[in-house]
Amino acid sequence: MSSRHLGIGLLGVGVVGGGVAQILPGKATQLAARAGIELRLVRALVRDPAKERTRGATLPPLGTDGAAVVDDPAVQVVVEVLGGEQPALDLIRRALRAGKHVVTANKEVIAKHGAELFAIAQQHGVALQFEASVGGGIPVIAVFQHDLAANWVSRIAAIINGTTNYILSRMASEGADFGDALADAQALGYAEADPTADVDAYDPCYKLAILASLAFGEEVRPEGVHREGIRSLSRRDFAFARSLGYAIKLLAIARRRADGIEARVHPVMLPASKMLAKVDGVFNAIEVEADLVGTALLYGQGAGSLPTASAIVADVIAIADALARGDRPRTPIPPSSRARLVQIESIDSRYYLRLSVPDKPGVLAAIAAVFGRNAISIASVQQPEQTPEDPEAELVIMTHRASEAGMQATIAQLSGLDVSPRVQTVLRIED
Amino acid sequence: MSSRHLGIGLLGVGVVGGGVAQILPGKATQLAARAGIELRLVRALVRDPAKERTRGATLPPLGTDGAAVVDDPAVQVVVEVLGGEQPALDLIRRALRAGKHVVTANKEVIAKHGAELFAIAQQHGVALQFEASVGGGIPVIAVFQHDLAANWVSRIAAIINGTTNYILSRMASEGADFGDALADAQALGYAEADPTADVDAYDPCYKLAILASLAFGEEVRPEGVHREGIRSLSRRDFAFARSLGYAIKLLAIARRRADGIEARVHPVMLPASKMLAKVDGVFNAIEVEADLVGTALLYGQGAGSLPTASAIVADVIAIADALARGDRPRTPIPPSSRARLVQIESIDSRYYLRLSVPDKPGVLAAIAAVFGRNAISIASVQQPEQTPEDPEAELVIMTHRASEAGMQATIAQLSGLDVSPRVQTVLRIED
Repeated sequence: MSSRHLGIGLLGVGVVGGGVAQILPGKATQLAARAGIELRLVRALVRDPAKERTRGATLPPLGTDGAAVVDDPAVQVVVEVLGGEQPALDLIRRALRAGKHVVTANKEVIAKHGAELFAIAQQHGVALQFEASVGGGIPVIAVFQHDLAANWVSRIAAIINGTTNYILSRMASEGADFGDALADAQALGYAEADPTADVDAYDPCYKLAILASLAFGEEVRPEGVHREGIRSLSRRDFAFARSLGYAIKLLAIARRRADGIEARVHPVMLPASKMLAKVDGVFNAIEVEADLVGTALLYGQGAGSLPTASAIVADVIAIADALARGDRPRTPIPPSSRARLVQIESIDSRYYLRLSVPDKPGVLAAIAAVFGRNAISIASVQQPEQTPEDPEAELVIMTHRASEAGMQATIAQLSGLDVSPRVQTVLRIED
Repeated sequence: MSSRHLGIGLLGVGVVGGGVAQILPGKATQLAARAGIELRLVRALVRDPAKERTRGATLPPLGTDGAAVVDDPAVQVVVEVLGGEQPALDLIRRALRAGKHVVTANKEVIAKHGAELFAIAQQHGVALQFEASVGGGIPVIAVFQHDLAANWVSRIAAIINGTTNYILSRMASEGADFGDALADAQALGYAEADPTADVDAYDPCYKLAILASLAFGEEVRPEGVHREGIRSLSRRDFAFARSLGYAIKLLAIARRRADGIEARVHPVMLPASKMLAKVDGVFNAIEVEADLVGTALLYGQGAGSLPTASAIVADVIAIADALARGDRPRTPIPPSSRARLVQIESIDSRYYLRLSVPDKPGVLAAIAAVFGRNAISIASVQQPEQTPEDPEAELVIMTHRASEAGMQATIAQLSGLDVSPRVQTVLRIED
């Protein structure tokens, strides 16, 4: 390497890339002291030079040709913050094959193509770092890679999507409807114009696949993660949850079982006393259960320009530090095998159900009989007083621990009843 | 190094050392895969061979001569878990000077002698790792050293003593008196027979000195940390705190100011909505405020055999991994200078005071006048109804933000009043 500085090429100068472009020159002295060498931004790719500009950042020569950034001989480390699968994937492949170290925030690329990219990086003896891909500024990838190295991780439970956590927090604190809370999140820049990736939970599925693969040492494919979003939740559910002593959160859960790995992202009811239940707004938290450390939790800002850029620059510093000392930066270790993921029907849980039912005698008996037939034991039933606007009665049922398969059969059979209850919401209760 | 295995010498086979002696052979295959080389416990020092034995651990040759463990040519990494200043300090010095890498859990030695030991390690090109010295199994040293490398840390607020947090949690949840809660903690093995290091807050002062030195890059001496323990707290204070919406915690706080660094450990009232207020029992948590990541929090078991051993083994793996790859393990960087610590009198805070006063007319007016004279603005006063057993009246005063110097003057002047109130408790309120 050049002994004077480390040349960095930046792919993407949007929210996160703008943060990187601001920090590298703005903190040059501090970073050089930590890295043992000057970190110099030598070239950047911007998608739309007219549009993407960033406050206070001194930008190096811009371009719209990603390959030119990657191929530039002055670039030794490629920072990819374009987001999305392409052209990011091709540019990362190209960089690794050219012997360049890569730092990325791209959860979709790492979740879908991590195993392939780790192998390419290993083959070419270069680093591929992705701390920023999960949990923004929260140290979590490094924690799994290094700090928990002696542990056998048994479970991860995480709030790893700030957009949905903001929406759910608004619904909980203000009794807001989903649509209003989403509109507010969009107005504040916390949600995209097309909010699908967040509210339908694609984003946290990518992140969970990354975390679970690291924690369990086997490749957890994102398409194998069971996924349910938050669109169907109602303000009524939040009112009931609060009165029952629970918070509603979109939780990403991965768990080792004797027969495989359970990986699922869906809304849950969490006892209000749990640390995860206190994680509000755009904050994220990752809870880990492991044989040695017991329960640990990592909490912080899971997104945003500077928190995410902090993780990226820390990754760059680790590479620079190794190079400055004459060492080879650590290459990623591809997973040894692909994890066997169990089906959602095989899990056990307690459940919360909210049903709309006609206000007729015998309704509860008919409904309870369906639960009984499927061996699901009811822990409590509440029938709140009806309001003039709503002639239908509402039933809130909490079950004891039951099988998901039994619950799905129950739900299907309920709709076949003469009294035709409508199942408005089903939530798993995560104790 | 030997290409077949890494030889580890263990100084101390007590609670933590027993965990290390159990994990190294018990997880040999997993650890070798992570480290790239077999980790072999080749020699151990036990203080009392008749007494100290550990469940399930296959112990290597024991001895009572620490120097023999350090000097053994088969020992490449010395793990020091004796605790206390001596002989640990001398043995660490001896190991570093002999070119051996050292992993320690010793907060007292690192807090008091870290700067000297880092310099010796650097001079001899060896590692000195101390993740286990603060927060047990919680990754926190590595987070400051690596993950937050691009940040400017402005504040740390931490619950880093499990014994006192257990006692305070019992006092809060059960209305227990300090003495009873302490006795319970001792019976459960959470507190020592002589609880001074914990309840008088020496232990968290060492830990805060370590964290602050890392976070701010200047040496924070432990004797410069303002220290107040928890002995004077009463069940009455917990009852008032709860009714006012606060939790009482022993908090370790370090903050950058224009004129120096504020470092203090004392009980505080924390708004119940804060994440730190939810940290109960023997759990620990470290909250960090920094320019890029904003607020982050690391939570987990701050003590105990296996959590602490987890941190030690992770440190050993980092050293082994570097050696196995033919690199030199990273040497610690001595602080560039000694921090200027500000005096406690210079801080600002809101305050809670509980006073016993004679039930006479004019008492409140006389007391309020003292606060006024010292420019301290009272936010609220409560005078709970008296009980038959207690003929004295009780006053609970909450102030607006005020100077510590003014508060100390107020307390001194109160005792000189004719109505002679007794100041039972003064707590700073940490928002």
